[in-house]
Amino acid sequence: MKQVFLLFLVIAIQAQSFANPDYACSSPDGSLRLTVSHNDAGSLHYSLLYKKLDVIKSSMLGLELSKPKLSLSKFDITAVDSLIFDESWKPVWGEVSSIRNHYKQIRFTVKEKSKAGIVMQIVFRVFNDGIGFRYIFPEQAAINHFIIADELTEFNVGQNHKAFWIPGNYDTNEFPYNITRLGDIDAEKANDIDDGLSRESLIGKNAVQTPLMMKADNGLYINIHEAALVNYPAMHLLIDKSNFNFHTQLVPDAYNNKAYLQAPSQSPWRTVIVSNRATDILSSKTILNLNDPSVITDPSYIKPQKMVGVWWEMHVNKSTWEKKSGKHGAYTENVKRYIDFASLHKIDGVLVEGWNVGWEDWAGNWKENVFDFITPYPDYDIDELTAYAKSKGVKIIMHHETSGSVSNYERFMDTAYRYMLNHDMNTVKTGYVGRIIPRGEHHDGQWMVNHYVRVISKMTGYKIMLDAHEPVRPTGLHRTYPNWLACEAARGNEFNAWSKGNNPEHETILPFTRLMGGPMDYTPGIFHIKLNQFDTSSKNQVHTTLCKQLALYVTMYSPLQMAADLPENYNKHLDAFKFIEDVAVDWDDTKILEAEPGDYITIARKEKGKGNWFVGGITDEQARKSVFKCDFLDAGKKYTVTIYRDASNADWKSNPEAYTIEKKIIDKNTELNIPLAPGGGFAISIIPQ
Amino acid sequence: MKQVFLLFLVIAIQAQSFANPDYACSSPDGSLRLTVSHNDAGSLHYSLLYKKLDVIKSSMLGLELSKPKLSLSKFDITAVDSLIFDESWKPVWGEVSSIRNHYKQIRFTVKEKSKAGIVMQIVFRVFNDGIGFRYIFPEQAAINHFIIADELTEFNVGQNHKAFWIPGNYDTNEFPYNITRLGDIDAEKANDIDDGLSRESLIGKNAVQTPLMMKADNGLYINIHEAALVNYPAMHLLIDKSNFNFHTQLVPDAYNNKAYLQAPSQSPWRTVIVSNRATDILSSKTILNLNDPSVITDPSYIKPQKMVGVWWEMHVNKSTWEKKSGKHGAYTENVKRYIDFASLHKIDGVLVEGWNVGWEDWAGNWKENVFDFITPYPDYDIDELTAYAKSKGVKIIMHHETSGSVSNYERFMDTAYRYMLNHDMNTVKTGYVGRIIPRGEHHDGQWMVNHYVRVISKMTGYKIMLDAHEPVRPTGLHRTYPNWLACEAARGNEFNAWSKGNNPEHETILPFTRLMGGPMDYTPGIFHIKLNQFDTSSKNQVHTTLCKQLALYVTMYSPLQMAADLPENYNKHLDAFKFIEDVAVDWDDTKILEAEPGDYITIARKEKGKGNWFVGGITDEQARKSVFKCDFLDAGKKYTVTIYRDASNADWKSNPEAYTIEKKIIDKNTELNIPLAPGGGFAISIIPQ
Repeated sequence: MKQVFLLFLVIAIQAQSFANPDYACSSPDGSLRLTVSHNDAGSLHYSLLYKKLDVIKSSMLGLELSKPKLSLSKFDITAVDSLIFDESWKPVWGEVSSIRNHYKQIRFTVKEKSKAGIVMQIVFRVFNDGIGFRYIFPEQAAINHFIIADELTEFNVGQNHKAFWIPGNYDTNEFPYNITRLGDIDAEKANDIDDGLSRESLIGKNAVQTPLMMKADNGLYINIHEAALVNYPAMHLLIDKSNFNFHTQLVPDAYNNKAYLQAPSQSPWRTVIVSNRATDILSSKTILNLNDPSVITDPSYIKPQKMVGVWWEMHVNKSTWEKKSGKHGAYTENVKRYIDFASLHKIDGVLVEGWNVGWEDWAGNWKENVFDFITPYPDYDIDELTAYAKSKGVKIIMHHETSGSVSNYERFMDTAYRYMLNHDMNTVKTGYVGRIIPRGEHHDGQWMVNHYVRVISKMTGYKIMLDAHEPVRPTGLHRTYPNWLACEAARGNEFNAWSKGNNPEHETILPFTRLMGGPMDYTPGIFHIKLNQFDTSSKNQVHTTLCKQLALYVTMYSPLQMAADLPENYNKHLDAFKFIEDVAVDWDDTKILEAEPGDYITIARKEKGKGNWFVGGITDEQARKSVFKCDFLDAGKKYTVTIYRDASNADWKSNPEAYTIEKKIIDKNTELNIPLAPGGGFAISIIPQ
Repeated sequence: MKQVFLLFLVIAIQAQSFANPDYACSSPDGSLRLTVSHNDAGSLHYSLLYKKLDVIKSSMLGLELSKPKLSLSKFDITAVDSLIFDESWKPVWGEVSSIRNHYKQIRFTVKEKSKAGIVMQIVFRVFNDGIGFRYIFPEQAAINHFIIADELTEFNVGQNHKAFWIPGNYDTNEFPYNITRLGDIDAEKANDIDDGLSRESLIGKNAVQTPLMMKADNGLYINIHEAALVNYPAMHLLIDKSNFNFHTQLVPDAYNNKAYLQAPSQSPWRTVIVSNRATDILSSKTILNLNDPSVITDPSYIKPQKMVGVWWEMHVNKSTWEKKSGKHGAYTENVKRYIDFASLHKIDGVLVEGWNVGWEDWAGNWKENVFDFITPYPDYDIDELTAYAKSKGVKIIMHHETSGSVSNYERFMDTAYRYMLNHDMNTVKTGYVGRIIPRGEHHDGQWMVNHYVRVISKMTGYKIMLDAHEPVRPTGLHRTYPNWLACEAARGNEFNAWSKGNNPEHETILPFTRLMGGPMDYTPGIFHIKLNQFDTSSKNQVHTTLCKQLALYVTMYSPLQMAADLPENYNKHLDAFKFIEDVAVDWDDTKILEAEPGDYITIARKEKGKGNWFVGGITDEQARKSVFKCDFLDAGKKYTVTIYRDASNADWKSNPEAYTIEKKIIDKNTELNIPLAPGGGFAISIIPQ
């Protein structure tokens, strides 16, 4: 690890006569140029160029407080300092084994112009592929406890870009993506979809969520999000369609307050990632770099892993979470069947949902006292299963559905985690389905953001790993808490089971949006694509080919990957399942071979500590050919490749399960040319000879 | 214990031709007569007579739901049943050793007239001194989860009574009492008092709190309150000054919902207590009787007790809760001093506030993470004090100031209670100062009501006793949880230390209002009346004479009584302190000798298990003579009485500490004639020879 701090000279540019000077800071490679201007009235604005192309035009900085009632928008600059930072660090797990954190920083110490004289710092970090900036409140006599009423930050993109967006909503991010020009955003319409979810916390017609992906007519790819969301609500964006300037909308609490802070404190980082190549967006580590280093000194218990689970069978109406139905899924013998399958196929874990009493009565009822997280249904013999799983070398993965009743979950957390450890479990999938209790709070508000951090902090004490469903979307906190393996926080594969589903383009967008903040538990691996197996009337289906499901293990990065389909379905296609069995979940290196949001993604990854490579390629509803050279391989070596690809007559809709498996010998000079069916994909394992 | 159930015939009265019948139910002694009428539209109204005098004129019954959106106000009566109940039960502690629960009940099973067809029961119990009624939702297909938007219950007193009231407020009940005609209620004005408390949750100009005490021009004393407040918000009353009909205002949550219920469930009991004698109001056990029997099978750990504490010294600026001031009160040697004093004077407990870190930064800041309830300040040696207290036969009383951050307290409850038991403590004073977190909840809303019950339930598991400060006002739940010794929930003696204080009439009103629901930890016993001892500039003083402070140990019933002043002040008046040392805190019998709300109260109580009697008498700002016969004493016995009374020149304002102690021998034929100074009182111990 190298770590370099250098001070560099801040250049104050006399932009025009009699005006205040501008301040500029470029990225280490010079491709980005940030400018911060300070006008006569004291307002601060920033703008960003990528190789002389506009990324962000002049955009306001500032905050409104409700206590003390004060606008923090007019400042005197009392100091400006800068540094160059360069270090490399090794994540506990990740897409690459080493990450370079290289940026120039410029920091403004400012004093708000009112009598209150509050001192703030606004710090910018300029990376080669984007910027981060945040507001900092140092400890000071002028302010102690205070309440954020609004954030005034703007992101003035200034042009009517093409955008990949979901409607702003305080409580859910499980939307299909919309692809429109910014001027055509209609979040109300997009919110009004019939997919079985309540959408009561819509923000408004012009509000969209981050990560927001855009493509400019000049070829730039621009992504806006945030990093290190701690003790602050999530940020949504409100588009002003008259000038394509985004304003900030923070998630409120019951009193329409946004954040209760005490100095010293700070906002999350606001991030803009930009490149003229879409692949650079996917390989950006800027959000991770803006997060704090790991707090875990002994990460030996943290294990990237694959899992199967008593879960998809509930989605396809084979069984139910609740017992009263007479079709309870989580009974001892059924779980053993999954354990047997996992053990046979080197799958690390078995998730069991519906194991605990309470499922009969909660969904949609905003009920506070539902689960206690320690009481199994009588047909779930936890002691027997603990012993059985251990004998088979498999870990059962705990499930804590909070039912949105977070006040209740917080009462039981310690007890629940001790119960897990006592039953040889150290990974838990949490869930936050439904409206939040405490009533008045939202999934994405400050209180819940603090809850998620409280959960992962407590789990850190117990050496437990986390997979959070229905939380706020991630912002790179898995750097700080590498036991936080994954989140859902977007529209997962499950929607294919009971709604109009996810369009074939869905998985080509997620890595440019939701996954910018961190790994997603998307639950790929559905082989039985037409979902009328247990409900013959069902017209639902997964909107991909079988091979695209395989490809997702590579294109949808996560250290926790589910093989979501039923053992009986995998047993019909064990040749294809071999890929899931073989594919790694932790990587030394990653190459984004080709990518275009909404269209296609092809990624090659090198297994951690081994010479094996795995490649995944996906397309949207359009058939295509993926052509790439294998020049990422070691020179002089021969590799055995197994290519799992769509059959020539495959099609996500009409013939999704048709696949071909071929093996051949390649080297780094080989060019592969692989056809993808409409809604299709391919997966390749590349093993050194 | 006798327990009798009898069915009696429900008399349906044909009130007028072609009208629906009325239903009547009288009290066992016939003095009260309840009538329930059912009009053509389906509305139900009740009215109440006391010996043919109007108590409640025709008043509506019903509820509004917000989910499902529905008015429960028009009904078909599907059944009417009745019973006579008569049992006697023995409280674990109380004002009397045996309580008779004797009432006639009439229960209406009704079906709401809309398509939904929800079935409810409305049950009335008619006691000799009042009524209780509640709404019951049986389990049924027509309704499961539902939300109460409003309660439609009316209390139509119909005349412009004199009333003893405090303004309706969702978060505090620490107001001085107002005495006005109902038509002159102005809660806004009454809310706007300069006593250092924030009063942000005022309900409105016409809202008052319960227990509401009234006196009618026809001589009736009428009290409106509720019993068994569980899983429901507190009820406030909105006066309609055009007709003197009270409407119900329930405490809302962040969404203006009032209660989230699931059938089967029920409202608390709405209570009206009435008599032509004020003394009957004070001796009523109707609210207790409407509560469920004790859930505690082994009450052996529950001990009525007296305490001193490191507490008043903070109120009079001798020391502080926080340590940073340099005047920290809760340091080891100081606590030992209190332990020594308690041990010497047979005081059971020593309360210590400010023992734990966090006091430097929370008040008024609505801060969530303040206390952890297990970390003492470094100058508080808890292990040494635990051992020292034990060696002296004294119990330290734990203090848990939640700072209103209830979400935080709930996370620590188990840990905190285990910590108490590990340090030989089994009584805790909780505090709820400040705005509630979860933000959007109120001290008196359903969520907090459930919290208080959650606390006492959990304490029951740990065998811990509770004294709750700043909770919702009590409703008799100490019958169900006799380890819930006392609450503050009103304006305590402490206000004398740092506000305009409590007028001399204050303590003559509290037993008719706040204490109707349960014991109050009023913290009497201040001997150093003028409070400039440590702050010479202070003009504050206790608004009573010293003898009135003694009398409060009898007139302000509580099984937990503090001797609130400092040991050094008691040591100057050990002759008067003898009464505090002697007075009992648990009773076999109680006689309300004379009482008039706002004017005077005289009460005699017989010590539990002993022949000793203690009498307390208080007056308002008027001097008076209390003249009573001692005919409550056993015939043929001689008693030594010690009379602690105001000196002849005593006056609460000009000469409050002047007292006289006299001893004599009396028997049951003795008539005592005791002068009380303005703002004065007297205390008497009566010990059999």
